[in-house]
Amino acid sequence: MLSIDDIRAAQINVYKHLKPTPLYHYTGLSELLGTDVWVKHENHQPVGAFKVRGGINLAASLTDEEKKRGLYTASSGNHGQSIAYASRAFGITATIAVPEGANPEKVALMKGMGAEVLFHGEDFDSAREWVEELAKEKNGKFVSPTDDELICGVGTYALEILEELPDVNKIFVPVGAGSGVCGTCIVAKNTDSDIRVIGVQSTEAPTMQRSWKSGELLSGEMNTTVEGIATRVAFESTQEIMRKYLDDFLLVSDESIYKALNLLIEHTHNLVEGAGAAAFAGALSVKETLKGQKIVVIMSGGNISTGQLSSILYG
Amino acid sequence: MLSIDDIRAAQINVYKHLKPTPLYHYTGLSELLGTDVWVKHENHQPVGAFKVRGGINLAASLTDEEKKRGLYTASSGNHGQSIAYASRAFGITATIAVPEGANPEKVALMKGMGAEVLFHGEDFDSAREWVEELAKEKNGKFVSPTDDELICGVGTYALEILEELPDVNKIFVPVGAGSGVCGTCIVAKNTDSDIRVIGVQSTEAPTMQRSWKSGELLSGEMNTTVEGIATRVAFESTQEIMRKYLDDFLLVSDESIYKALNLLIEHTHNLVEGAGAAAFAGALSVKETLKGQKIVVIMSGGNISTGQLSSILYG
Repeated sequence: MLSIDDIRAAQINVYKHLKPTPLYHYTGLSELLGTDVWVKHENHQPVGAFKVRGGINLAASLTDEEKKRGLYTASSGNHGQSIAYASRAFGITATIAVPEGANPEKVALMKGMGAEVLFHGEDFDSAREWVEELAKEKNGKFVSPTDDELICGVGTYALEILEELPDVNKIFVPVGAGSGVCGTCIVAKNTDSDIRVIGVQSTEAPTMQRSWKSGELLSGEMNTTVEGIATRVAFESTQEIMRKYLDDFLLVSDESIYKALNLLIEHTHNLVEGAGAAAFAGALSVKETLKGQKIVVIMSGGNISTGQLSSILYG
Repeated sequence: MLSIDDIRAAQINVYKHLKPTPLYHYTGLSELLGTDVWVKHENHQPVGAFKVRGGINLAASLTDEEKKRGLYTASSGNHGQSIAYASRAFGITATIAVPEGANPEKVALMKGMGAEVLFHGEDFDSAREWVEELAKEKNGKFVSPTDDELICGVGTYALEILEELPDVNKIFVPVGAGSGVCGTCIVAKNTDSDIRVIGVQSTEAPTMQRSWKSGELLSGEMNTTVEGIATRVAFESTQEIMRKYLDDFLLVSDESIYKALNLLIEHTHNLVEGAGAAAFAGALSVKETLKGQKIVVIMSGGNISTGQLSSILYG
């Protein structure tokens, strides 16, 4: 299993291309939660999401021969942008499968960074299974969203949190495939075992949460409209880490995530995508347990389209 | 007149409290302008705007006796937040006058940081004249939005731009009272006199632009709805610097600023306020002169209310 030293090693790769992101305290959010709240601004990364840390670490870890073969992956959004960004930075060709009907703004961004984008299937998991076969045919390197190098790369944000706020009590993390929450767990629990790490998913896509609770690897219903945490099939590698370390795993409705999104825009004046608001929605749902604590919520990304934004905004 | 060395000296104060902001290249914006575009993300600062650099530098420059007397200033928004933030960081009392009907979210943020907020007059200039008298009565220190320490503090963002992109050709800067554009001019023109610095204001509030063009200190109509560049009375100290250094000063309509704001949200996924979109609106208005160049636009801040945002967003 990955260790905190693996994540420390990734810092060398990550900081050659990226800078630490801010951890800001917000009075307005603290009043809403009745406790002290900091936001980790992964939405400030290039490509607007934490995943880019993983993409950079993965690309930096490839052999020259692997770089020549090119990267293949599937993504409805931020993971694809991250791989496209890192591939461009390292001069690697990237082929990214997206579901039919994928967010056109996100597709344009991946193409703009030089990636080849291929449409296949109805959802992320269909596109992923298909492009994994394609990578084999083409002798390319398939990248799963839970590859070790990705977890180690994204875990560097947790090292930044612990350095700036070593007496944090609870960290709330949105869970999609689980790379972010695993990186956070490995860092936090091996720094101070009293720190609680809490995953958050939508009640409308609870596969990762149910798998974690039951100890079995499940697939299931996926009806959330919140991209980035819309996981239909649980991932074994991240479940294993979560079972060892994760303290709690909350489910919150899509509706409460969009309410949290509005509150975050109002109080932080940052653009935030649904997944980026899930952690704060989770904290709001257990507000009464947080008194007198220092809480960090991960704003994992800001990649929301103007159309989505205007339909979600209360105004 | 202030020199680039004064701004370099301010870096010591600024970086004790703040971190450099990102300068990101955007493919989508570059396609729109037909040239290479970078955005300087001052919206990533605490309090969401570039002004906080000035507030920190000013507070750090006070004598102990001045700190005890407290700071008095007027602001409809970001300047007030900046002074409130810096005052809290240095344990100084802050009294901030705002016009009647000031943005309630911004007022709440200033109060949340411990500032006393007093309502007076119809616009920024009325509140400013009134609070300057109040500071005299109370033996406090009045802060004008164009004080030297503020210009030097905010000028540090220009040092960051020149360090990261020394071959920049043109920098577009929104102009309110002028501290940002003056800091940018002093840094850019004393580093490489070939770099062009271009101010941008709204046609609905052109006082600073007309004063710069005419060489006289004017006051005049102010009908823009774009906070942060809504200046009715020109400032002598910043006009003097602008007359020496500024290469051009564009006027763009409120409507084109809101169009630019939508494009920036779409292509950068950052929340941006009207003033923060003015620089890009200015660049768009002279698109045909920018071919083959490296352009930086200052995203000066992101402090827009959810109500404003939903009314401006095209969706």
